[in-house]
Parts: sequence; C-alpha cells; structure tokens
Amino acid sequence: MVKCAVVGAKGYTGCELIKLLAQHPQVNLSFLADQDDTPQNACELIANLPQDKQLEIKKFDYDTVVKSCDVIFLALPHTKSIDFVSKLSKEEGKIIIDLSADFRLKDITMYKKWYNTKHTAPALVSEAVYGLPELYRKEVKKATIIANPGCYPTAIILGLSPLLKRGLINTNSVIIDAKTGVSGAGRNATQKNHFCEVYENFQSYKINAHQHMPEIEEIISAVAQKKIAITFVPHLLPILRGILASIYVEKNDSITADTIYGAYEEDFANEPFVRLMTRGQYPQTKNVEGTNYCDIGIYVDNASSRVIIISAIDN
Amino acid sequence: MVKCAVVGAKGYTGCELIKLLAQHPQVNLSFLADQDDTPQNACELIANLPQDKQLEIKKFDYDTVVKSCDVIFLALPHTKSIDFVSKLSKEEGKIIIDLSADFRLKDITMYKKWYNTKHTAPALVSEAVYGLPELYRKEVKKATIIANPGCYPTAIILGLSPLLKRGLINTNSVIIDAKTGVSGAGRNATQKNHFCEVYENFQSYKINAHQHMPEIEEIISAVAQKKIAITFVPHLLPILRGILASIYVEKNDSITADTIYGAYEEDFANEPFVRLMTRGQYPQTKNVEGTNYCDIGIYVDNASSRVIIISAIDN
Amino acid sequence: MVKCAVVGAKGYTGCELIKLLAQHPQVNLSFLADQDDTPQNACELIANLPQDKQLEIKKFDYDTVVKSCDVIFLALPHTKSIDFVSKLSKEEGKIIIDLSADFRLKDITMYKKWYNTKHTAPALVSEAVYGLPELYRKEVKKATIIANPGCYPTAIILGLSPLLKRGLINTNSVIIDAKTGVSGAGRNATQKNHFCEVYENFQSYKINAHQHMPEIEEIISAVAQKKIAITFVPHLLPILRGILASIYVEKNDSITADTIYGAYEEDFANEPFVRLMTRGQYPQTKNVEGTNYCDIGIYVDNASSRVIIISAIDN
Amino acid sequence: MVKCAVVGAKGYTGCELIKLLAQHPQVNLSFLADQDDTPQNACELIANLPQDKQLEIKKFDYDTVVKSCDVIFLALPHTKSIDFVSKLSKEEGKIIIDLSADFRLKDITMYKKWYNTKHTAPALVSEAVYGLPELYRKEVKKATIIANPGCYPTAIILGLSPLLKRGLINTNSVIIDAKTGVSGAGRNATQKNHFCEVYENFQSYKINAHQHMPEIEEIISAVAQKKIAITFVPHLLPILRGILASIYVEKNDSITADTIYGAYEEDFANEPFVRLMTRGQYPQTKNVEGTNYCDIGIYVDNASSRVIIISAIDN
Repeated sequence: MVKCAVVGAKGYTGCELIKLLAQHPQVNLSFLADQDDTPQNACELIANLPQDKQLEIKKFDYDTVVKSCDVIFLALPHTKSIDFVSKLSKEEGKIIIDLSADFRLKDITMYKKWYNTKHTAPALVSEAVYGLPELYRKEVKKATIIANPGCYPTAIILGLSPLLKRGLINTNSVIIDAKTGVSGAGRNATQKNHFCEVYENFQSYKINAHQHMPEIEEIISAVAQKKIAITFVPHLLPILRGILASIYVEKNDSITADTIYGAYEEDFANEPFVRLMTRGQYPQTKNVEGTNYCDIGIYVDNASSRVIIISAIDN
Repeated sequence: MVKCAVVGAKGYTGCELIKLLAQHPQVNLSFLADQDDTPQNACELIANLPQDKQLEIKKFDYDTVVKSCDVIFLALPHTKSIDFVSKLSKEEGKIIIDLSADFRLKDITMYKKWYNTKHTAPALVSEAVYGLPELYRKEVKKATIIANPGCYPTAIILGLSPLLKRGLINTNSVIIDAKTGVSGAGRNATQKNHFCEVYENFQSYKINAHQHMPEIEEIISAVAQKKIAITFVPHLLPILRGILASIYVEKNDSITADTIYGAYEEDFANEPFVRLMTRGQYPQTKNVEGTNYCDIGIYVDNASSRVIIISAIDN
Repeated sequence: MVKCAVVGAKGYTGCELIKLLAQHPQVNLSFLADQDDTPQNACELIANLPQDKQLEIKKFDYDTVVKSCDVIFLALPHTKSIDFVSKLSKEEGKIIIDLSADFRLKDITMYKKWYNTKHTAPALVSEAVYGLPELYRKEVKKATIIANPGCYPTAIILGLSPLLKRGLINTNSVIIDAKTGVSGAGRNATQKNHFCEVYENFQSYKINAHQHMPEIEEIISAVAQKKIAITFVPHLLPILRGILASIYVEKNDSITADTIYGAYEEDFANEPFVRLMTRGQYPQTKNVEGTNYCDIGIYVDNASSRVIIISAIDN
Repeated sequence: MVKCAVVGAKGYTGCELIKLLAQHPQVNLSFLADQDDTPQNACELIANLPQDKQLEIKKFDYDTVVKSCDVIFLALPHTKSIDFVSKLSKEEGKIIIDLSADFRLKDITMYKKWYNTKHTAPALVSEAVYGLPELYRKEVKKATIIANPGCYPTAIILGLSPLLKRGLINTNSVIIDAKTGVSGAGRNATQKNHFCEVYENFQSYKINAHQHMPEIEEIISAVAQKKIAITFVPHLLPILRGILASIYVEKNDSITADTIYGAYEEDFANEPFVRLMTRGQYPQTKNVEGTNYCDIGIYVDNASSRVIIISAIDN
C-alpha cells in the first residue's frame, strides 16, 4: 500500500483525484488537506465515496504530510505549488505529483510570461518530469517531481506525437480547434461558468492566448526536435466533462495514408489508455467520460494533403 | 408615448424588462440607470436590442429620473426599493412599478420575517396594488404604486384563483410542487448557479421556506376570503427559463368536473395572457418561453376528489 | 463464478446491465443475446467495457442459454418475457431475473388492464418474488423467478415503506410528484425523446396513467396491509439519468417528527444501498448518478401534519 | 400585402418560417400545406403564434396554391422541390422561394453526386438565384426562383467573402471547423437526435462529406473567381439552435491586419443583418439565437500569417 496525501482537496481537481485514489486497491489515502481552514468530511463534497473510509479533509499541516505520506499530490492553483515543492523536495524519499502548471514548462521565461510570476525554483523545473507516460514512461518511473499535464495538452500531444516524432508533417501547419466542457475551469463561481451564460450557448475564448499553449508548444517541439508554433483556438462546450480537439496538419506530400495510420498503430497498439479508432470512426466525448482513455480518430485527405486528427479525453 | 425609466438596469430582470419595453410601440425609454457607476451601452448586456435606439445605462440620478420620466420601473434587489419609492411617491403624477418584493406583502410583520428588514413605509404598502391584472385589473389602472408579482406567485395564484374565489376546494389541502429554471435567481454568480452544480442535476430547495410563500398565501387568502396555509416545495430545473407548478387540492365532494372546468373557462376565456389548455392537455415550459402567457391544464380525479392544476409561465 | 446470460442485450437496460455485470468479480457473462439478428461486439454499444473480455452479443438461442448459464437476466420489452419465463421455469436449477414488468403485478387483471395483454402464466406470477431486497431480502434469496422493480417504484416504495408498515400516516393521503431523466424510456428514437423536444423543456405526462402506478399501489398496499390508491404525476426532466420523487402524505396527528425519523433510521441504518440524509438535507439526482443508492430526505411539518419525502435514485 | 404559401408546413423549417411570416406586417399567409394528409391547426405545432390568425395547415393542392398566392415558399425535403418548381415556373408572375438544396448548385453533376438524384430541370437551375442578399441583392430582387442558402453556407460564405473577393488570402488554405445545434437536422426522430445521444456529448460528423460542402465551394469559388477546395469538419453541439464556424485561412504575406479588418467593414458596415464584432470580440451563439443576424469576429495573427474568422448564425 502506498501512503498518499492530497493537498488542495476541496477543489474540483482535488475531489476528482480523491475519488480515483479512493478506488485504487494499492493506495492508502493517509492525509487530505486544504488551505481552507474548516475540516470537512470528503463525503460531503464528493458524492459516492465508499463511506466506510475515514476521509476527513483537514487543515494543511506540513509535518503531518511529511510524516504520514510517501506520495504527495498537489491540487493547488497555479503558482501555489512552487514553494511547497521546493520545501518538500528536500525531504528524503518523497514523490511529488503536481497537478498545477508550475513545473510543466522547462522554459521559465515562458512560465513568467504566461503565469505572471517569476519562477523561484528553476533547478527543480529541470528535474521535474512531464507526467505523460505515453511519451516519458521511463522517466516518470524514476522521477521524484512529476508535473502532471494539463487537459488540453494531453489530448493534443497524444494526437500529434506519432506524426511529429517521425517527421511526417509540415511543422508550420498545426491548427488546433479545441472544445472543452465546463468542469475544467474549477469550482469557483464566476460569471463565465454561470449556468445562464454557458447553457444553450457556444463560443470561442482566449484565441492563441490560452495558458496551455506554451505547454503544448514546448512538448511537441521536444518531440519533433524542432521549434513549433501552433494556432490554438479553444471553445467552451455546454457540457460538464470532456475535451475534443480537432487538429489540422499538412502531411508531407510523399507520405501515404497507410504510413500515417501505421504510425499511430505502432505507438498506441500497446498503450492501455489510448484507444485508436478504426478508420472512418471518430471519438465522441461521452465515450471517454469518467475514464482516463484518450480516443483518437484519423482522417487523411490526399487531395489537400491534410491530416485531421480528432482526439478526445475526459478533462 | 409614455416616458419610462428603468432603475437597476444591469440585472437579469432589468435587462429582460428593457428588452420588452424597447419593443413596445408606445414606450419611450427615457432613462436607464444602475447603481453600478460605470455607464454601459445596453446593447452590450442585452443581445438583439434594436441598435438604432440610444440605450445607454447611466449612473442613477434622482433628479434626471423625475424630470425625464412618467413611469418608473424599479428592478432592484429586495429591500432596496423602499426608500426610493418613499421619496418618489411624493412627486406629482408619477407611476412606480416595483419589480422587487418590497410592496407585495400587505402584512409588514411577514415582510420583516421573510426579508429580515423592518418596513419603513407601511402607509405606502397599503396604497400599493398587486400588479396581477387577472385579479386586480381595475385597481392596477388607477394605481400609482404597483407591486409586480413574483414568478412563482403568478403561476400559482392564477392556477388556484378560479377554485378559491368560488369556494370549490378544501382550503387546507393546497400542496404546490413547483419547478423553476435558473434565470429566476439573477445574474450574480454563486456556487448554486455554477453550470456544474445545475446541469444534469435536479433537486428541491427551501422546502416551505421560499420567500414567495407568504406572498402566495396572502393573495390566495384574499381571493378565498379565508386564511390559507400552503405546502410549497420549489425545485431547481437545469433549464434557463420557465416555471411549472403542479398544484394538488381536494375538491369539495359535491363539485363536478364540469363545474371545475367551467370556473376556469369563465375566468380566463377573455384573458389575453392566460391560455387554458383543452381537457387532457397540459402545459410545457417551452411553449411559454419568451412570452407572457400563463398556460394552465386541469386534471380532475373523482375517485380521490383531487384536482391537479399544472400551470406554466416563463419566469 | 456465476454463469450469467443477458437476453435483450442491445437496449439501454440490457447495456447498462452488462456494464454492471462486467465489473462484478463473481460474474461470468457467459451469453449475451438479442432478438435482433446481427451479432455485435458489446463494446460497440457500450463505451468503456473492459476490452479484454469477449463480449459478443449473439442471436438468441434457447438451448445455448440453458446449457451455458445458471442465472438468466431478461431485459426485454414488457409482455415479451412471459413465454420465455414459462419455458425456462421448467428447466432445473435456473434463476430468472426479469427486468420487464411481466411478473411484477400479482393481480393479473391489473396486468391486463395496464399492459393490454392477458397474462398466460398466472401460476408463475404467484411464484415470482418482487426483487426489492430492502423489503423482500429473504424471499429474493430463495426465489427462482425474480421480478425486478421498475425505476419509479423503487424510489417511491423505499420512500414510503417505513411509514406505511408502521401505520404512521393516512393511507388516503399519498400524492407523488415524480420527475425522471430521459434514459428511462429506452433506446428507441421517438418524437418524445428527440433532443429538441426535451432540452430546455419540462412537462408532466401520463397523469394518474403511468404503467408503474399499479405496481406501486400493489406493493405499498401489501406493506400497509390495506388497499391504497395514490395520486401519481410523472414529469420529464431534461437530464440523462436520475429520478427524484417528492412524496406528500399526512401523518396521523399524534405522531411526532422523532417517530417519523426514527422509523427511517430503524429500517435503513443497515441497508447498504439506502442513504438517509441528515435532517434538513435533501437528495439531488447527481449524487446518485451511476450508483445503486437510493437517497432519502424527510421533512416533517407539524403545523399542517404533512410529511414530505424526497427520494432519488439513478433510473 | 403579399399573399404567401408555405408548402411543407409541418417540418421544423416550415414551422419556423410560418412563425417569421406570421409576424411580418406585409405578409398574408394565404395557404399552408403539407404532403401529410391530416389538416392541422398551425398553433398546435407552433407555440406562440398569434391566435387570432386563421392558420390551418391543409392537404396540399396545386390549384389552390396557384390561385391564392403570389409568393410560394417550399420547405420540402431535398430532391422533392424539383418537380414542383418545374410546374410552378410556368405560371405567370409567381415568385418561388425554395428552402431545399434543389436549386442551390449550378453544377448539376455535383447535385447528382451529393443528393443521389439526377436533376430534371437544369434550365431552371441556371435561372435560380442564390438567395444571399449580401452577395446577390440585385439579382434576388428580380428573381422568380430563389434558392435559399443552407445554414452552414450562410455563416461560412459571409465569413469568407470579403477576403476572397479581394484576393487577400491563399485560396488553398481554407479550413472550416463548424459546429451546429440539433434543430438543423429536422423534426424526424432518429437515433442521432435522441436526447441521450446528444446531451452531455460532442462529436464530429461527415468529415469532408457534408452535403453543404459543394454549395460552399461553388459560391466561394464564384466570389473568388477561382476554383476553391475546402476542408470542412462539422460537429454536433448539444444545443437547440445556433451555428458557429471557426474558419482558418492564410493571408498573403503583404496584407496587413488593417486591410483585413477594412475589407469586412467596407462590405458589412451597411448590411442590416451582419454584425461585425469590435476587434478582440468574438461571437457566441446565444447572441444570434432567434435572430437573422450573422455575427462575425476576426483574429489576425501576423506571426503565422493566419486569419481566424469566427462566424455565428441561428441555424
């Protein structure tokens, strides 16, 4: 049994994480904490937790976390993880899994630009591993600081990586039209997630200005071994859960459809959490809801030399 | 042309009102004001206003309102209208239409109990007319202070009044199971109207504790000329607009179904905004969406001596 | 391992059942069949089935079912189970779990009235056990024909039984205002479940005419040991899953709130799938979504002598 | 007063049209007809029609249409208008407005390819005018056969035409990621528009295979005076009404953002039904719901030389 802590347990991310960990046969949820002072039973926030478990969310206490847990999940708002990870990284034998964006960007000038905060632990950024097992399985296994990928990046990077790592496409041609459900934006009530603003509505937001854009660009550039700039237009769907990204790229002329499909089959045939659709089939968000699958469908248009990748995950 | 002001123009209620008044051929929207300091073009808040109209929402200014307008609509939060109406009632020849609850309850002890504020203008409360034309048409025409009914009360009072004013039912038997869309609760973002809390969900709230309860009880008691206490259970629907109330009462044994139906036909046949469904037909919210119709369907069960009234309005 | 068959595997009910059984550690899904001729992999119909399992839905074949399975689930349309159960009941050692309404009503004149079909196996009706473990656990364990309760009846019977079996309420006073999500009506596309007819809409249907009404009346009459007639108004919610029933009854005057609450606590404290809410808390459908919990909240109004029971299940 | 007929009055398109025409001060709805035999009051199908109007939908009768009406709207399924228009075009002085696709494509080989029917009236196809006033106002005014544009084409052609007619973009670069509400697909109940398949779901469909694709390509090629092939990926939104198209094109390098914005301003400043958003603002479907506005927002990215056009209409 692995003794785990969740810090930031009251947000949507924290709650979702607790739900998953509570069902895991090898996880012992030893400490749930939140900056919010009031202790609260996790069952009040999270419907359908196994009731026999003692899952109280307590006030955060550093020493308790360190003493009682081996793996510490941080479900904190962006910029709030840095100090905590810095301190914790000095403890012996802890594994830190940070769900925020604080350790995702290797280029800390980009971090400053997009999150408006100077990064105070650049050495740890270098040490951190981007937690996408399909790309970095070996590194993840040995890592002590794991930067969990954002939702958009997971769907998009998995959708693009087979093409990029083989040099099959024009790296200047990447256009991503992405759509997300509402739960991705967290539990805080704002005008933007008011039922009356979202329901029976659809719109784009943050065109080429979403904070996940540098994360996507950095990872796919590493995969392609070439600097890539993307066009990225997120949209808000009137649904709870799910992301679907429609990705448009130009293939190199000589590349056949079979080569394209073959790349995906080779990379994902043995991946437990990527489901490659049969040709002519495309993902829908409800088929990935409540799962950690990434469903990917591919359309190759020889006339225009375009490849369209449709990639869906729960967000 | 009637020169009108709307005070409290930025809330959902104010915006909806402006939309209706802007289309009215005999209304001149002379002044739109909001406590919120920043002037704003109404078109930014309200999609699809006729763009040729000059509809700027300005900072509230009492003298401008008085000078430029004959009819003043108040779309203010509850308890905020009292002072304003007090002052304005001393001006010559103004008609005040208050959309808050501040002048709906004749019994100011009930006002204090439900709105937690001592009413400072009881004389004006007596003077105010409850603005439901189906019951008080004559009085409304002569009134200078009109207290506009709440959304639940409109649907429920219209549904019950034909039976109550004729003494056809047991006044102890009234049970109201009401359901409302989200827009009724206003524009402020709260946890309760967060998309993720409302969508794909349904629940009751404020059982026998909704602030519209005393308003309903007071008016139906007046109609029945007998003190009536109701059971009132509101529920929150995952829709934008619409209220549907299912009302359960016991008819007096000797009363036939024809007498029941006849009472509704007599009262509503000539009412332009009440649509009595044909027997066996019942309302649905989408048929009243965007209208000021109240649709009413009646079910009479002789075996149990129960009458079920289904009443729907846009909220 | 119990070897199970599902007959009628392609409907929403069949699919949902397969999903549940596929996760059950002691179930071996030995045969999935459907009247529809075309064999189909269950994974195509049911997202997120474990892919390693061989789950092909085949053409129905009686002999294969009998040979390969011990427990046979029937997820057939109403009236289609009778012949099948008749034949199967003659086989040695099989347990039949019928999800249709065909063996729920002991009174076969009621069956004829509500399902428009003469029942051809009345002896088996007497033998069948109503599969609600909270009421009939002992009988269910020994039964060979189990009639699985309908969705509305489950929520409503559980909500009423503690009061009825103790004689705490006026049995003439039962009013049920029930609301259901759309998935309850099955996979067939009709005008009634067209997205455009359901979304942003709410309406009642089948007032005192829903086919679950005699089932509820029969079971609660048995519980109360007294013939009970109810008022039952179902409504259609624009959500996928969930039923919430608001039940209104009159308590006998001398009965205190504590007696009422105590009855529920006594009956349900040890029931794994009934969650009694703390006083002042009421169920919401999303908290039971995807579970087999029944959440129950109780409101006691001494002034009116009414008890309001809010009961929610996934449908 | 113009005497109008609507043929195909019972579909969603016919009903929506009747609603609009019934409010038009210069329209006399002289004859409403449907192939479906049963006469029906239009008010039963269309909520909120003015009830004083006599609006019975009758069995179709050719002679009555011709005698009683000057303008005939055809809201028939695709391929059903051809014969009717052929016959009617021989009558003196009638104006035919066809809402189907039957007279939209000048290239009848494309018609055959996409609608699977040989066109039997090619001469009338040449005569028909594409009813988009922003492009063909003069021609529409003189036309006797008007082919009303499809929903996707309206949003997309208006979004692209200012750039194409001025040669500002690379015509090989057009990628259209379009999203539509459900009502566009008509009243017939199918598995695809079942509430449970659409709600809380999102997916692409008919990638590069939607029947509106040749219509878009033909008109934009005419506008650009150059053959254009597009990439077109439609998606299905879980909303009732609205289309939002995100269009990606490459501008010619020397073209500045001001030139781009200027082109839109020049073309649309005086168009009553196109609303150009201010820079940095983008459309949302709810702002065009229930209107015939097309809202257009433009994003120019000099770094990538891409222009993103977001265009929204009610569908």
